[in-house]
Amino acid sequence: MAWKVIKSEKDLKNLLLNESLLSLGNGYLGVRGNFEEGYTEDAKTIRGTYLNAFHDETEIKYGERLHGFPLTQQKVLNVIDGQSVDIYIGDERFSLFEGEVLEFERSLHMDRGFAERFIRWRSPEGLETKLHFRRLVSFTVKELFAINIRVEPVNHSEPVTFVSTVDGDVSNYVDVNDPRLASGHSKRLNVTDVRHEHGLSIVRDMAMITNLEVACVTATAVEAGAYIFASHSTDTSVQETYECEGGEAVTFTKFNAYTDTLRHGNALVETGIAIQNLQRDTKFNDLLRAQREYLDHFWSVSDVEIDGDAELQEGIRFSLYQLLQSVGKDPFSNISAKGLSGEGYEGHYFWDTEIYMLPVFLMTQPAIAKNLLLHRYSILENAKMRARVMGHEKGALFPWRTITGPESSAYFPAGTAQYHISADIAYSYIQYYLVTKDEELLRNEMAEVLFETARLWIEVGHMQDGQFRIDSVTGPDEYTCIVNNNYYTNVMAKHNLAWAVKVYRYLEREDDKQLRKLEKKTRLEKHEVTDWQEAAENMFLPYDEKLKINEQDDSFLRKKRWDLGNTPKEKFPLLLHYHPLTLYRYQVLKQADTVLAHFLLEDEESIETIRNSYDYYEELTTHDSSLSYCVYGIMASKLGYKDKAYSYFKETARLDLDNIHGNTKDGLHMASMGGTWLSIVSGFGGLRVKEDGLSLAPWLPENWNGLGFRLRFQDRLIKVRVEQNRIIYTLIEGKDLTITHHGRELLLESGRETVIHRNGSMQKALI
Amino acid sequence: MAWKVIKSEKDLKNLLLNESLLSLGNGYLGVRGNFEEGYTEDAKTIRGTYLNAFHDETEIKYGERLHGFPLTQQKVLNVIDGQSVDIYIGDERFSLFEGEVLEFERSLHMDRGFAERFIRWRSPEGLETKLHFRRLVSFTVKELFAINIRVEPVNHSEPVTFVSTVDGDVSNYVDVNDPRLASGHSKRLNVTDVRHEHGLSIVRDMAMITNLEVACVTATAVEAGAYIFASHSTDTSVQETYECEGGEAVTFTKFNAYTDTLRHGNALVETGIAIQNLQRDTKFNDLLRAQREYLDHFWSVSDVEIDGDAELQEGIRFSLYQLLQSVGKDPFSNISAKGLSGEGYEGHYFWDTEIYMLPVFLMTQPAIAKNLLLHRYSILENAKMRARVMGHEKGALFPWRTITGPESSAYFPAGTAQYHISADIAYSYIQYYLVTKDEELLRNEMAEVLFETARLWIEVGHMQDGQFRIDSVTGPDEYTCIVNNNYYTNVMAKHNLAWAVKVYRYLEREDDKQLRKLEKKTRLEKHEVTDWQEAAENMFLPYDEKLKINEQDDSFLRKKRWDLGNTPKEKFPLLLHYHPLTLYRYQVLKQADTVLAHFLLEDEESIETIRNSYDYYEELTTHDSSLSYCVYGIMASKLGYKDKAYSYFKETARLDLDNIHGNTKDGLHMASMGGTWLSIVSGFGGLRVKEDGLSLAPWLPENWNGLGFRLRFQDRLIKVRVEQNRIIYTLIEGKDLTITHHGRELLLESGRETVIHRNGSMQKALI
Repeated sequence: MAWKVIKSEKDLKNLLLNESLLSLGNGYLGVRGNFEEGYTEDAKTIRGTYLNAFHDETEIKYGERLHGFPLTQQKVLNVIDGQSVDIYIGDERFSLFEGEVLEFERSLHMDRGFAERFIRWRSPEGLETKLHFRRLVSFTVKELFAINIRVEPVNHSEPVTFVSTVDGDVSNYVDVNDPRLASGHSKRLNVTDVRHEHGLSIVRDMAMITNLEVACVTATAVEAGAYIFASHSTDTSVQETYECEGGEAVTFTKFNAYTDTLRHGNALVETGIAIQNLQRDTKFNDLLRAQREYLDHFWSVSDVEIDGDAELQEGIRFSLYQLLQSVGKDPFSNISAKGLSGEGYEGHYFWDTEIYMLPVFLMTQPAIAKNLLLHRYSILENAKMRARVMGHEKGALFPWRTITGPESSAYFPAGTAQYHISADIAYSYIQYYLVTKDEELLRNEMAEVLFETARLWIEVGHMQDGQFRIDSVTGPDEYTCIVNNNYYTNVMAKHNLAWAVKVYRYLEREDDKQLRKLEKKTRLEKHEVTDWQEAAENMFLPYDEKLKINEQDDSFLRKKRWDLGNTPKEKFPLLLHYHPLTLYRYQVLKQADTVLAHFLLEDEESIETIRNSYDYYEELTTHDSSLSYCVYGIMASKLGYKDKAYSYFKETARLDLDNIHGNTKDGLHMASMGGTWLSIVSGFGGLRVKEDGLSLAPWLPENWNGLGFRLRFQDRLIKVRVEQNRIIYTLIEGKDLTITHHGRELLLESGRETVIHRNGSMQKALI
Repeated sequence: MAWKVIKSEKDLKNLLLNESLLSLGNGYLGVRGNFEEGYTEDAKTIRGTYLNAFHDETEIKYGERLHGFPLTQQKVLNVIDGQSVDIYIGDERFSLFEGEVLEFERSLHMDRGFAERFIRWRSPEGLETKLHFRRLVSFTVKELFAINIRVEPVNHSEPVTFVSTVDGDVSNYVDVNDPRLASGHSKRLNVTDVRHEHGLSIVRDMAMITNLEVACVTATAVEAGAYIFASHSTDTSVQETYECEGGEAVTFTKFNAYTDTLRHGNALVETGIAIQNLQRDTKFNDLLRAQREYLDHFWSVSDVEIDGDAELQEGIRFSLYQLLQSVGKDPFSNISAKGLSGEGYEGHYFWDTEIYMLPVFLMTQPAIAKNLLLHRYSILENAKMRARVMGHEKGALFPWRTITGPESSAYFPAGTAQYHISADIAYSYIQYYLVTKDEELLRNEMAEVLFETARLWIEVGHMQDGQFRIDSVTGPDEYTCIVNNNYYTNVMAKHNLAWAVKVYRYLEREDDKQLRKLEKKTRLEKHEVTDWQEAAENMFLPYDEKLKINEQDDSFLRKKRWDLGNTPKEKFPLLLHYHPLTLYRYQVLKQADTVLAHFLLEDEESIETIRNSYDYYEELTTHDSSLSYCVYGIMASKLGYKDKAYSYFKETARLDLDNIHGNTKDGLHMASMGGTWLSIVSGFGGLRVKEDGLSLAPWLPENWNGLGFRLRFQDRLIKVRVEQNRIIYTLIEGKDLTITHHGRELLLESGRETVIHRNGSMQKALI
C-alpha cells in the first residue's frame, strides 16, 4: 500500500502525535486531526485550525533589552473551531472514552486527500453503532474544510442527534515548560460577530493587536428519514442540532468556509456566504472527486517510488503529501517550520524554506517555488529596514524568523546573528533561475534581491590583509554562535556576491534600461559592483592545512572536543541540558554546517577536502536538529558511504511517523520532509543544478529493488528509474537535453528512454 | 572648604541628580536626598530609603529561555518611607513650589556626617519664615535615620504644624525606556503591621517572594512653647501631628529606627523599640557629635589632600565619603554598584567591588575590606552550584551580579560569560593577604576560594598544542562578548591558578592538618594541583608580533576598526544606539580591558608591550563605562603620559558631581569613586602591592601644589606627601619598612619622615 497512513491506537497516549500526523491542509487552511466529538477533560490534545500567515503580535519580554532587540513577535493563531460535532445515540453521548470501542481505525489517504475514522462502538447501555467520519481540506476551493459523518445502528433504533458547533472562543496552546513553544499569549482572538442566518452559521473573530479578522461560515445538512432542526447562538458560538429518526443509517455533513482579511479584504462574511452559495449543490463526494483529480495530477509529477521497503515508501509519500498540504500558494504565505499542522515555532518561516523545502517544489512544481520566492521579495523592504536597525547603511538582512517581514527572533545569537539566511534566499533565487531560466524574474525581483543581499555582505564584512572576512555571525550550527568567518556563511556570501555581479553584468549587456531603473530604485553606485567582485574573489574560506578540512569557523579547531561518546543519552538534545555558553566552548555540532556548504556549493572545494571535512564533523554532530540527518545522508551518497547514506535516510524519512525527536505533537518537521526528498533525489539520485546544467549520479541502496522519481527542468519532465542493474532516464516532456550522468555527458532525447546498464552498455528506446 | 557639597538650585530640573548626590548612608541604611515636605505632582523624583541587601525576587522573562538562564533576579527594595514631614504655617502648607523662595541652600557635610537645607520662604499670603532642615544616617547606631527641622517666623506669629508620616505603602522606581533600570516589578512590599504605641509609630512590611521583613519604629519630639499632639493610623501608615503655638522658633525632631529580618531576626519591632528606648535621652546634637567623632577618625587615615584644586579636592573627598556611606559593614552585605544612593542595577554587587572599591578600604580600613571578602566567601556555595548549572563538574563560578548569591544577570553574553569575576575575587584575596599578612584568612577562606576558583579554570579551559586556552568568555570590555582567550581573563586566571598552587604548597609546609581538612571538605585530589600548575605555566596570553601588543582576544585584531572619529556624538554610549552584534563585530572598547590587566598584573609584560597596548587600545575606547577613565589614568601615570593622567583623573573625580554620564539620578557610580582614589594612589602615587612588598612612584601634576594620602600596610600607617620639589614619607605607626620608591629600595624608619628632594638628595627626621 503506502498511500495510506493508518493509526489504530484507541488509547489517549498518542493523541497529540496522531493529531499532527493526521492533520489536513492545503497551504492556506490547516486542521489538526482532532476528534469531532471531543475528549475527556484530562486528555492532552491541541485542538487546532490555522490559516497560513494569519497572526497576531505578542510582546517579547527581556530581562535586559538592548538596542535592536525586537519588541514584538508575530504568532500564528488557532482560529475559529469548526471541527466540533457531538453525537447522541438516544440519550447517550458518543465518546471513545465511555462504553466499549469494538473496532477503531483512522487513516490518512494521501492519494485521495482525506482522512477517515471507522468505529464500532457499544454504549454503556449496550447499544451498538457503527460510525464513519471523513474529513477533507479542499485543494480546489482553499477556504473549505468539510466533515462527513455516517452513523449506522447495529442493534437498536434509537434516534441519532448531531449537535454541530462553530466556536469563536479559541486560544493558542501553551506549554510553559518547553522553551521551543510559546509561553503565555494564548488568548489572542475576540469574537466580533455570531449569527445564524439563511441556514448558515456565521462566526467572526478579530486579533487583538494586528486587528486581522477571520470568519467561518458553515453550512450543514443531514440525510435521514425525518429530523428536527434547531439552532442556537451564544456570545461566541453557533450551535445547530439535528435530531434524526432512528432505525437506519443517517449522514451528517458540515462545510466550513474560512475567510480572512489578508486574502478576502473586509467582506469576509459576504465572501464566506458566497462560497457556500456556490457550493450549495456540491456534495461531499464531489469534493472527494476533486481532491482525487488534483492529487492524481500532483503525484504524476511528484511521486517517488521505492520498491522493496514499504515503511520508507510511506515516509517519502507522507513527506511529499505534507509539503503539499503546508506550502502557501498565495502571495501572503510561505511555508512554516511546522506547516499547518501545529503551533510550534509560532508559524514562522525560516531558512528551512530555501534550503530544505523550496528545492522539492522547484524540481516538481516550479510555480509553487516561484510563489515562495515572491513572498520573500514582498518582505524585502522589511529586510532593508532590519539592516538599518542593525547598523548597516545599505543592504537587506532577512529576518531569521517571521511571518510578514518583521524579525521575530528573541534570542539573537541563534536568531538574527544567522546572517546566512540572506545568502540562502539569494541562493534559492539563483537555483530557481538555473532550473527555469525565468528571465523575467531575473531582471526584476531576483536582480533586486541579489543586489540588496550583496550589499549586506559589504556592510558586514571587511577586507583585511587581502582577505574578505565576515565577523560575528552564526552559521547553521547553533551550538557555536557569534563566530568569525563561518565557512558556510562566507562561501554562501561569496556565491551571493559573485551572482550579484553576474546579474549586474548581464543587465548591462541585455537590458540597460532595466538596469538604470534598478539603479535608480536602489541608489546603486558603480563602485559597489566592484566591491562585490573584490569581496567575492577574496572571500576568506577557512581551511586547516593539518587536517586538510574546511574549518567551521576560524577558531573552531582550537576549541576542546565535546566527548559525545561519554555524554549520557538523557542529556540529548544538548541545548535542553547545557547552558549555551558551555556548548559554544566546544567542538560539537547541532547540525550539518560545513558539510551543508559542501552540498550546496560542491565545486568550491576538492573532493578530498569534502571527504576529510565530512569525516571530521560527522563525529562531532549530535543531529539535535531535524535539519541534519538528510544533509549527512546526501553527502554520504556523494562520498560513496552507502551504508551511512541509507541509515541517515531512514532517520529522515520517518522522523515524524516514528516521532524520533519526540515533539511531533507540536507539528510536523517540514524541513525534514523536504530533506527526505532531497535525500533521495540529491542523495541517491545525485541531483545538482549548476550553470552548466543538470547532473545526476544515481545509485540504489542494496536492499531496494528500485527507485523512481521525476524532475522538471527547463520545461522538461524527466523520469528517473534506478534499479540494481540499470538506470533508466525517460524524457517524457520537452526537448532533447544533455545532462551529466556520473560525471559524463549524456544526451536525453525527447520522448525516449535511455537505459544504462551496470556493465556500461546503453540502450535508447521510444516510450 | 571642600568638606561641603553645596547645591543652590531652586528649580526642579536637577532634583533627581541632587537626590543622589546628597544621599546619606552608613553601609546598612541609605536615604536619598529628598525633601521632607514633598513636591508638586509633576516633579520627577525618586523617594528612596534602602537597606543594603534587603531584597525581593522578581521573575526574569525571556523571549527564548535556554538552559541555565536564571529564572529570577534579586532586587533591592525601596523600604518604608520615614522622610515625610509636612509643615503648615497657619493654614498655608510649606512648599518650595508655591509662594516665593527668598533664600535656598542645601549642603552635605562630609566632615560632620549630615545634610542640611536653609530656606527663607514667603508664603502666597506673604508670611515669611526661615526653615532649617538637618538629617543624618548614624554611623554609630546603624539603624538610625534622624531629621531635625527648625522653623522660625520672620514677620508673623502664626501657629506652626508638623505632620510627620511613616508610610509603608512604597514602591520601587520604574523607567520603561531605559534598559539599565528595572522594568516592572515596582510594588514588592506589603504592609503587615501599623501601630502607634507608647508614643512610637510602628510600621512593618514584608517582601512578596522572599518574605524578608523590614520595620520602621519612629520617635518624634518638638521643642515649642505649647503644642497639641495627635496621632492617626491608616492601613499602611502612621501620622503624628504637632500643632505648635506661634510667635517663636519651634523645632521638630524625628528618629527613625530601621530593622530587618536579615540582621535582627524576627523580633524586628521589638528591636526597633529597644533602640528607641536606648536613645530616649539622645538629642539630635548628640548624634551629630558622634558622627563628627566617627568621621574624624575616618578622615585621619582616609583623607586625600589636593593642594591647588578645590574642585578635584571636592571630588576625591566626595568619593571617599560616599564609599564609606555605601560599603556594607556586616556579614550580609557587600557594596552595590550604586551604593545606597539609588536603585540602578537593582542594588547588585559586581566585580566593581574587588577591582575598584575594595582596594581603597584595603589600604585604609582593612577590616572593612575583610568583611567584603567574607561576604564573597559566604556565597561560595552559590558559586559552586552556579558552576554545576553551567555544566562544570568542579569549581566555583561567582555570579556576575547578585545580592545573596544567585546569579541575577539576564543577558549572559555581558553577564554570566564574564567568568573573570572569579579570578577578580581570587585576586582581591591575594592582595588582601599581601597587605595584611592575615595567615588565618589565608589558611581558611582564602585557600578554599582559591582552590575552587582554580578548579573553574581547569573546567573551562583546555591544553592544546602546549598552550592552556580559555574559550567563549567575555572580558571586562562588553563591546566584544563571547570571545576566545581574552587576555585579561587568561592572565587573571593564570594568577589565580599560580596562587592556588602557592597556597597549597604553603599549607603542605606549614599546616598539613588544615590542608587535610580542606582536601576532605573540597574533595580535592593531588593531580588537580599539578593541573593548576601546568595551566598557569602554559597559559596562552595573546600577543601580536607585528603591533607588539597583547591582543584583547585571539581574534580582536582581525576585526574591522570602528571609526570613532566619525561617529556622531549623540550615538554615545554606543550600546544604546547599536545592536550588540554590530558592536561585537568591530575593534571598539567600552572600557579598559587589556590595559586593566596591565595595571593589575604589570610584571607579566614588558613596559614596551604595555606602552604599545595602551597606545593602541586608547584610540579604540569610548569610555562608555564609568570604570574606564580611572584605569587609563592610572596607566598614563605609569607610562609618563602626564597630561593624560591628569585629564582622565578629572573625568573620574567629578563623574557624579558633574553628572558626566547623565544618569547619576539612578544612583552614584561607586566604582568610579573607588577609581578616583586609585587614580591618585595607584596613579599619581604609583602604588603597587606585590609579593616583594609595597612600591610607590609618586609624581605631582604640574598645576597642583601638593598631594597627600595615607596608607595602611602590614600594621603600619604611612603618610605620603608629594610636592613639586620633594616627596615626604612618614612612617606614623609601626615598625621600620623597606619599600620600593621609583624602582629603588627605600627604608622607612618608624616615627620618622623621609624627605626625597627633586635633586635626589634625601633627609630623615623625627616627626
